[in-house]
Amino acid sequence: MPTRRDLIAALEGAAGREYVLWRPEDLAVYEFDGTIEKSMPHAVVLPATTEEVAAAVRACNRLGVPITPRGAGTGLSGGSVPAKRGVVIGTGRMRRILEIDPVDRVAVVEPGVANLDVSKAAAPFGLFYAPDPSSQQACSIGGNVAENAGGPHCLALGVTQNHVLGMEVVTAAGEVVWLGGRVADSFGYDLRGVFIGSEGTLGIVTKVVLRLLPVPASVVTLLAAFDTVEQASETVSSIIGAGIIPAAMEMMDRLCLQAAEAGFQCGYPPDAGAVLLVELDGLPEAIESEAARVRAECLERGAVDVRLASSDRERALLWKGRKNAIPALGRLAPNYYIVDGVVPRSKLVDVMQVVGDVSERTGIPIANVFHAGDGNLHPLVLFDERVPGMTERVLDAAAQIMKACVDAGGTLSGEHGIGAEKRQFMPWLYGETDLENMERLRGAFGNTGQFNPCKLLPGGTGCGEMAHQAAAVRAAGPDAYV
Amino acid sequence: MPTRRDLIAALEGAAGREYVLWRPEDLAVYEFDGTIEKSMPHAVVLPATTEEVAAAVRACNRLGVPITPRGAGTGLSGGSVPAKRGVVIGTGRMRRILEIDPVDRVAVVEPGVANLDVSKAAAPFGLFYAPDPSSQQACSIGGNVAENAGGPHCLALGVTQNHVLGMEVVTAAGEVVWLGGRVADSFGYDLRGVFIGSEGTLGIVTKVVLRLLPVPASVVTLLAAFDTVEQASETVSSIIGAGIIPAAMEMMDRLCLQAAEAGFQCGYPPDAGAVLLVELDGLPEAIESEAARVRAECLERGAVDVRLASSDRERALLWKGRKNAIPALGRLAPNYYIVDGVVPRSKLVDVMQVVGDVSERTGIPIANVFHAGDGNLHPLVLFDERVPGMTERVLDAAAQIMKACVDAGGTLSGEHGIGAEKRQFMPWLYGETDLENMERLRGAFGNTGQFNPCKLLPGGTGCGEMAHQAAAVRAAGPDAYV
Repeated sequence: MPTRRDLIAALEGAAGREYVLWRPEDLAVYEFDGTIEKSMPHAVVLPATTEEVAAAVRACNRLGVPITPRGAGTGLSGGSVPAKRGVVIGTGRMRRILEIDPVDRVAVVEPGVANLDVSKAAAPFGLFYAPDPSSQQACSIGGNVAENAGGPHCLALGVTQNHVLGMEVVTAAGEVVWLGGRVADSFGYDLRGVFIGSEGTLGIVTKVVLRLLPVPASVVTLLAAFDTVEQASETVSSIIGAGIIPAAMEMMDRLCLQAAEAGFQCGYPPDAGAVLLVELDGLPEAIESEAARVRAECLERGAVDVRLASSDRERALLWKGRKNAIPALGRLAPNYYIVDGVVPRSKLVDVMQVVGDVSERTGIPIANVFHAGDGNLHPLVLFDERVPGMTERVLDAAAQIMKACVDAGGTLSGEHGIGAEKRQFMPWLYGETDLENMERLRGAFGNTGQFNPCKLLPGGTGCGEMAHQAAAVRAAGPDAYV
Repeated sequence: MPTRRDLIAALEGAAGREYVLWRPEDLAVYEFDGTIEKSMPHAVVLPATTEEVAAAVRACNRLGVPITPRGAGTGLSGGSVPAKRGVVIGTGRMRRILEIDPVDRVAVVEPGVANLDVSKAAAPFGLFYAPDPSSQQACSIGGNVAENAGGPHCLALGVTQNHVLGMEVVTAAGEVVWLGGRVADSFGYDLRGVFIGSEGTLGIVTKVVLRLLPVPASVVTLLAAFDTVEQASETVSSIIGAGIIPAAMEMMDRLCLQAAEAGFQCGYPPDAGAVLLVELDGLPEAIESEAARVRAECLERGAVDVRLASSDRERALLWKGRKNAIPALGRLAPNYYIVDGVVPRSKLVDVMQVVGDVSERTGIPIANVFHAGDGNLHPLVLFDERVPGMTERVLDAAAQIMKACVDAGGTLSGEHGIGAEKRQFMPWLYGETDLENMERLRGAFGNTGQFNPCKLLPGGTGCGEMAHQAAAVRAAGPDAYV
């Protein structure tokens, strides 16, 4: 291993003295992300250009120092926590929107640009960027690419994978390459696609070409209240089964509703067992008739109340409660653990039943707020980490829920990634050969095990150092998102 | 090299004596695909199960014999031609539709199933499979996956990449793995995505989970006639710019129109310089107003006639001309060469101008029929290969057009693949490092250079044997598609 002095000198050579951090007080904010995982890097470098990123990567490779890429640090699976310490390469200074092209409908941005700022820049042209994670005011496009981020409005429009046409990246080997381009049709190996969602293990994105979409002509938001989660779950399948694909279809259960209502007075019916928040967009003529059909499906499945937001203000309020539901749950318990799993829509009722059973059997309250339309569950296990042994019981409950998702034909993550948290579950879905193929793929980008180590794939040496290796336990607070 | 006897015995051990072909008369149909490339394999094996495919791959690897996978053989870039001879593994016996699930909206099929048969099987549930290559009656789903196939209706809905949720594959190393699954949200390395469009160089797909979509409630088809290709090209941009994404938007120029009209009496205006065929689908209320807006955009850009298909019969006839335009061009010349390039929509007018200039400068007629909405050009260079030196002049003209596509920020293929035909152009788009990364990716799936050799990437030893290494020159005939 090099001395700290060698490392700092090499990084300063790559990005300039001003942009290398090494004092403990400067490093503190780089030791965690949106999970409870913690590990302090030896140094942080903040390059401003592609060339500086490449120089920093090559300097670390030369010295044999682990690298962890970092966007805005809002991730929910520990992806940007430097598990084996070493160097964090942050993209916070690469924040330029380089181009908005309304004819080709693309934006070209640097990785540090915040998700919502793309839509703001595109708004004057009547365009927007579709993926909308709840953290969209803060989270960066580079991080969105790494985690293949989703959001409520990804039901009809798809996740980040569907909205990134191409990008410039610095590979784990320190090479600068373009993956994809400015047009949607691709040919040959879709290295663009394999990079998106690779959780910062293949390289660092330095420029991104985003697809922009026209802002819908009009929007209708409905809130349907049900007595039970089962009724609401069945309604989700019957709406989709009727040939309607809403722009968004979100579910909240009673615990969530009560917390959100207490926090934000959104006008949610506090006595309901569950609500569906359904958004339709398109031409006014079409969505009027679709809204009538959604309303009819809800009533047929036992909805006790179906309400249409009658103004933009009312619509914004309904969404405010949903987007801030998780921070609001901080009122109910000092800590929570967010599960992120996906199930086929047809299994939604069964798996929600398992979630209820796990809560009952363990005596631990679990709230539910999630992207119902695409079967992406987010059970929130509520607890107090100061109770001895409680964290372990919570992790065990969460593992039971994840197992139920996988057994139902689902997957381990809809939008938060595997990260440090769930990599030990990968063998539930993948055989030894599959995992070996993924290791080889990682190697093809030049990752020899030191580029964002201890993430995504099980195994790896020296990965036992973080506080909660298998945990995404986190202190609830007002800046939490899901 | 093994003896022929050894090879045949090994293949018979993998798939049974009845399903190994080695007599020249049996091999003849396996020496070409939809291009003019030709190369006769030493043997063909037709496995019926995943295990038999894996056994055949491992047998060939053990003997060091090159493998070329093959679907229905309708490809347009030489992808299934056994460039270095060896063994063709055909999926023609794997033709079962294993499942249609109307709730999760997926079909699970074997690779030999014809594209159109999926939609036929899904029709009783009100569902269909979106990608619709013009060869859809014949081409196989496995081949569609290999080439990331498109089609006229991929404008709004996307290509094969967007409609395959998961698949079982036998890798080039002979291992059986699952890539992706039954649900759309993916996480980790998108090996599913990287396999789609890999042109049979990473493995052989043995089961595919396809996404099904609801059949649209109603459809409107418009035919707009213009004096010039430029007017029609500008209209494409202005329709998209107006926020309308038609289900399909196809362009045909005068040469094409006249040939299609002579062949099929579709009611195309024979004096027009170009026509746009625009299809809208959705709820009746919405498409009525969209059709009015499309009509207005066409007229504003100088359309001399805009006609709505007033019946299903008339709609089918308009499409019949488009889907059979290329065979119809066989009336005009004994041979043609199909160019497949993509340009940003904003460059459509410029690049169409280059196509016209190339035709004028070389004196070789070029017809145009293409997916205008997504900038996917298919200039057809018309010629007679019996004229000495003509094939070389045609290839040179085609190369000039490809270069113009790339220079305009476009790509080398929209839907036909790179194959044997265009691999020497790859350095126009990719640097040495990019191409090395692709080689390494290929290696990660166990391809050591013997699995579909001489395709997609430039270079490779012993690749100079095919009749027209750089050509997609082909004899025109009634079973040609684009």
